[in-house]
Amino acid sequence: MRCVLVSKSLDLRGYLGPQFLRDADRIEIVSHPLDGPATDIRLAVAWHPPDDAFERYPNLQAVCSIGAGVDNILACPSLRPDVDVIRVVDPAQAQMMSGFVAWHVIGHQRRFATYQAQQREEHWQRLGQRRAQDVAVGILGFGEIGRRVATDLALLGFPAMAWSRTPKAAPQGIRGFNGAPGLDAMLGQTEVLVNLLPLTPETRGILNRATFARMCRGGYLIQVGRGEHLVEADLLAALESGQLAGAALDVFANEPLAPRHPFWRHSRIVVTPHDACEVSVDAIGATFRATAEAIRAGRRPPHSIDRARGY
Amino acid sequence: MRCVLVSKSLDLRGYLGPQFLRDADRIEIVSHPLDGPATDIRLAVAWHPPDDAFERYPNLQAVCSIGAGVDNILACPSLRPDVDVIRVVDPAQAQMMSGFVAWHVIGHQRRFATYQAQQREEHWQRLGQRRAQDVAVGILGFGEIGRRVATDLALLGFPAMAWSRTPKAAPQGIRGFNGAPGLDAMLGQTEVLVNLLPLTPETRGILNRATFARMCRGGYLIQVGRGEHLVEADLLAALESGQLAGAALDVFANEPLAPRHPFWRHSRIVVTPHDACEVSVDAIGATFRATAEAIRAGRRPPHSIDRARGY
Repeated sequence: MRCVLVSKSLDLRGYLGPQFLRDADRIEIVSHPLDGPATDIRLAVAWHPPDDAFERYPNLQAVCSIGAGVDNILACPSLRPDVDVIRVVDPAQAQMMSGFVAWHVIGHQRRFATYQAQQREEHWQRLGQRRAQDVAVGILGFGEIGRRVATDLALLGFPAMAWSRTPKAAPQGIRGFNGAPGLDAMLGQTEVLVNLLPLTPETRGILNRATFARMCRGGYLIQVGRGEHLVEADLLAALESGQLAGAALDVFANEPLAPRHPFWRHSRIVVTPHDACEVSVDAIGATFRATAEAIRAGRRPPHSIDRARGY
Repeated sequence: MRCVLVSKSLDLRGYLGPQFLRDADRIEIVSHPLDGPATDIRLAVAWHPPDDAFERYPNLQAVCSIGAGVDNILACPSLRPDVDVIRVVDPAQAQMMSGFVAWHVIGHQRRFATYQAQQREEHWQRLGQRRAQDVAVGILGFGEIGRRVATDLALLGFPAMAWSRTPKAAPQGIRGFNGAPGLDAMLGQTEVLVNLLPLTPETRGILNRATFARMCRGGYLIQVGRGEHLVEADLLAALESGQLAGAALDVFANEPLAPRHPFWRHSRIVVTPHDACEVSVDAIGATFRATAEAIRAGRRPPHSIDRARGY
């Protein structure tokens, strides 16, 4: 079997490294665009593929992402509807994300940014303590990662809620919500909103003025989904009005975040460079091998997304 | 029964508030120093009592602290050795402490201080990720609070170790250490050191050059015990040499921390104003009522400390 690496933004061969190539020993790995014939390409690993990339591979059966998100692959116009798109599931990634989110939730609860400002002024002033149970967290997205984030926050004492499009079983101590009425119900009780949604036509722009307005006043946004989920002007307005007290942004519509973008210097926005979590190359390799094995066996690869819903 | 409030640093009547006085309905609460006779005083609530305070109360049986620490009461020269000293146990306090510690541990792991500096420079640069399991945390003190801190850190994926003077049963997933050899063994594997010890003659100055030198290079100190545990010059030297990468200090030998103290402006020290956690007045009230009930019944009050070991 031959597999093609397809990306316009990343040197995938370098990114995946020699171990990945060694572990793929029964598969020949080539890079897009090919010089020779491409009819024997049945598998691809892709990240931000060029628009016309998949026109060249008429017998392609599956495309593996290198992350949990597949939006950048689904956005490619030459991707045929019958091709399986596979996302990487990495349990270690859920733990990384959970620690990242917990840090921001606790930081908001305990007012560490204010303490830091006080330290700069050599000002000794206790701010009063709010208990974890008084800071309700609403999580958008209730897959593997959302589940881990919610569970860890609940263990730390925070009331944890999680929303998904369709109903899902909630682990002990987590309140689950679903559908449009569920979203309204959750937002109405949410002080800290964590966005872990996949990017789909339905979720694009979901972090907007109306969403912020439904949250508890003085809330906090933790944006770790995709940049396109956020309406940037609406965030700035919500911070200006006090509806939101602050925001932690790890993802942006344009990355790297442009010089002089207002987010950089905003006193109540924390910017990190899309580093909340990343999947390991080991996990990508495991997904890749499971996909190749399924293709050989004529089975549908595990972790194939539902093309209709987009995740 | 009559109870006296004794403090040279705090208006205890105001601090405890009207609810505390109402709940103590069968006990007359008076303030030190009394005008009239004091032979009927059997109970005190104290915080930093004046040196001669307890000379006035020959029939005193028990002194309640208003926190988990009793060092400020034991330091009082007029406290007779047969008087029970009671500390407040507040499960909510353990949760508050745990969140505070977790925030600093994750902040060190994920290099949030560096990200913050990068944001000020509008500099987009991923720093590479270390997993929680690669950041070992050693906790000094393995009482109710240490147990909660260790358990929560373990749930977040950090290897958690805890040390106590004498052997204690360790919950699942926590490695327990004890005695002097145990301390050396734990420090040798510790990247982040959390100090939760009570202040006793044995623990005074325990956070010193030798302790830091035994830790993994580039370690981190989270100091939430008592200011007198720390040898301040040794901390500054360990930061200077790179043996420690940073420190979070919530307690100080002199509070408030003096203006122009070098800790305030140190780029790798986080100062908070002794606010990691505090016991609630409800918990103080519950401890107080249990103490009064035990005295009436002729029993030893619960949470009486061991005067010989000092906690």
